[in-house]
Amino acid sequence: MKNNNKVAVAGCAVTGFTKLDHNIDRLFFIAVKDLFKNTPNLSARDVDTLVTCTNEQSNYMSNIVCEYSGLSPRICYTVESLCSSGASGIVSAYSHIAAGLADVAVVVGAERLNSPGAVLEWDKSRGMFNHPVHWASLFTSSYKREFGISMEDLAYVSANDHRNAFDNRSAYFYKKTGFSLQDIMNSKKLTEDLRLYDCSMPCCGSASLLLTSEQYAKKFTDSPVWISGIGQKSLFASFTRNSPLYSIESTRTASNDAYQMAGIQNPSNEVDVAEIHDAFSVCQLMELEDLGIVEKRGGAAEFVKEMYDAKDNKINPRGGLIGAGHPLAATGVAQTAEVFLQLQGKAGKRQVDKTETGLIQNMSAGGTSSTVLVLSG
Amino acid sequence: MKNNNKVAVAGCAVTGFTKLDHNIDRLFFIAVKDLFKNTPNLSARDVDTLVTCTNEQSNYMSNIVCEYSGLSPRICYTVESLCSSGASGIVSAYSHIAAGLADVAVVVGAERLNSPGAVLEWDKSRGMFNHPVHWASLFTSSYKREFGISMEDLAYVSANDHRNAFDNRSAYFYKKTGFSLQDIMNSKKLTEDLRLYDCSMPCCGSASLLLTSEQYAKKFTDSPVWISGIGQKSLFASFTRNSPLYSIESTRTASNDAYQMAGIQNPSNEVDVAEIHDAFSVCQLMELEDLGIVEKRGGAAEFVKEMYDAKDNKINPRGGLIGAGHPLAATGVAQTAEVFLQLQGKAGKRQVDKTETGLIQNMSAGGTSSTVLVLSG
Repeated sequence: MKNNNKVAVAGCAVTGFTKLDHNIDRLFFIAVKDLFKNTPNLSARDVDTLVTCTNEQSNYMSNIVCEYSGLSPRICYTVESLCSSGASGIVSAYSHIAAGLADVAVVVGAERLNSPGAVLEWDKSRGMFNHPVHWASLFTSSYKREFGISMEDLAYVSANDHRNAFDNRSAYFYKKTGFSLQDIMNSKKLTEDLRLYDCSMPCCGSASLLLTSEQYAKKFTDSPVWISGIGQKSLFASFTRNSPLYSIESTRTASNDAYQMAGIQNPSNEVDVAEIHDAFSVCQLMELEDLGIVEKRGGAAEFVKEMYDAKDNKINPRGGLIGAGHPLAATGVAQTAEVFLQLQGKAGKRQVDKTETGLIQNMSAGGTSSTVLVLSG
Repeated sequence: MKNNNKVAVAGCAVTGFTKLDHNIDRLFFIAVKDLFKNTPNLSARDVDTLVTCTNEQSNYMSNIVCEYSGLSPRICYTVESLCSSGASGIVSAYSHIAAGLADVAVVVGAERLNSPGAVLEWDKSRGMFNHPVHWASLFTSSYKREFGISMEDLAYVSANDHRNAFDNRSAYFYKKTGFSLQDIMNSKKLTEDLRLYDCSMPCCGSASLLLTSEQYAKKFTDSPVWISGIGQKSLFASFTRNSPLYSIESTRTASNDAYQMAGIQNPSNEVDVAEIHDAFSVCQLMELEDLGIVEKRGGAAEFVKEMYDAKDNKINPRGGLIGAGHPLAATGVAQTAEVFLQLQGKAGKRQVDKTETGLIQNMSAGGTSSTVLVLSG
């Protein structure tokens, strides 16, 4: 396989993630409108590709968004892949551009509050336990047992995320206080191994990205960011087949592929900023290790505690899924938007020092599939 | 934009299109299973991309198909774009391969009998007239008025399709008689301008395709067929904005792009076999002209009558949507499978003479979007 045309991220917009129950058409429309507002040189006729990403059970949504937004692209369809629908849409748009079929693509992810993607009804192997809280509990108890970590260790993940989300205007918990370590420790126990503040919030929201070929990038931004690595892996649909339960196999495979494509030898040194899919606290610990950002298996808890003490926000600067909220298909797009802004040096109060290489990890259904993207400034 | 890695069609399967109401999981599964059966050298570990296409309101279907089928691809998601979901999925898989992200992709389209995609609820501009029969009636009356054609002229489209479907084991009307010109003329009037036999049958069915990079094609077939041209256009979601009503703007644009990419100057001479989206009789007439297969606007009726008299099956050899049935997302995949077999010379009783270049046209919602593919032997 050879690598083809370079693909840039050249613009983005993220709408406010909230518990309001907006209509799906509106969520898509405002994310597209805001992308145009944020990208003054972008006109409707530039857009030759529109990929809409959602778990909403709708039909012809991509064309409905065209009609609302005045777009008339060549390529136009909806992508669904549960919680990583957004990253899948980005890989699709990347491919159209790299293949030479497109030059200017809008990827937009949107989700209503009560998305049908929030609970995967299919997986009968879970019996009555079809809610993500159940796999998260099993993952947590497995990880705790294997590496001897405590509920306090886990609380640092949520504390970091909430501190980071405080400065993110789009975050569900923007400017919200009450998430000290103690608050998190005391939050309602949902299961033996899971407290309320260990969980991401299902919410409504949308986000958009502008991807372009190399030749078009300069029209829209003076600091394009490049998609330099892509890795994806789908294993199955039932989380119970993930083994062992304290590591996410699809993320390991996807990140290896992404690093190889991007020429990254040592992610723990080379990744400057990362947005990773912490639907629950334990996910962040597992992912830091599966991505090789923390080299030692079981060492992520200490790494997270060090970030807490140092007020370091290089992991999930927008607040992660726990602090920013998790509007399923919008998440991967919003994660990528954050890393794009960070690599441009335009992340405002959330700006991480020295950002040349950034990473996005977006996954579905207890890690049964994962996408890893590497961006380079 | 430059053109990259060559992409081959290297295998296919089409299941029987019926009025039975199969479960969507089963429809996907049998199309994948049959693809493996038809492609002896294909093993599950070869498949690095799975694109599932459907209007079914499901979540994580692509991974569910992985679990049923033992696949563990890199790239894996569902595509939806109403009646042209299948062609959109093919363009997506093409792009992953041409971009260098994939080598061996399975594209599979499936639809239940009562698919939610059969009637586009969104389009309030139609008032109560949200069923496709209504736009088809308007298109028919507009085309008849503009070019002075009769209901008898239209009956030839359906007669050709039914004759072609007679030899297609997958067709809804396989081995079915009772579709003489007179039978069609006498079939139940649904509106002033539309008889029952002018309409395609909504039905249940599935179809799959194997797409590969150049280097992998030879592993699976000794006569690969190449995707040499791709054109797509999305204009809006409401058919009422299509103007004039006797021509499909999105098909004109998409075919021009596809011909340019494939180096086709004169489609009326160069296209040897075509599968076009005749959801209703009038669509075939409009499309033959919009695709440039018939050069003279209003000349398609005569062209269709000549095919009838000569027993020529180069247009819709598998029976078109009218004879083969129209299981929405499976249609574009089945159309492409047919042209693939025709270009391989393996279409059996349906084989068209001299097939070097083939065309597929798949569209959605009264032509508000279209995809055109060109295949070369």
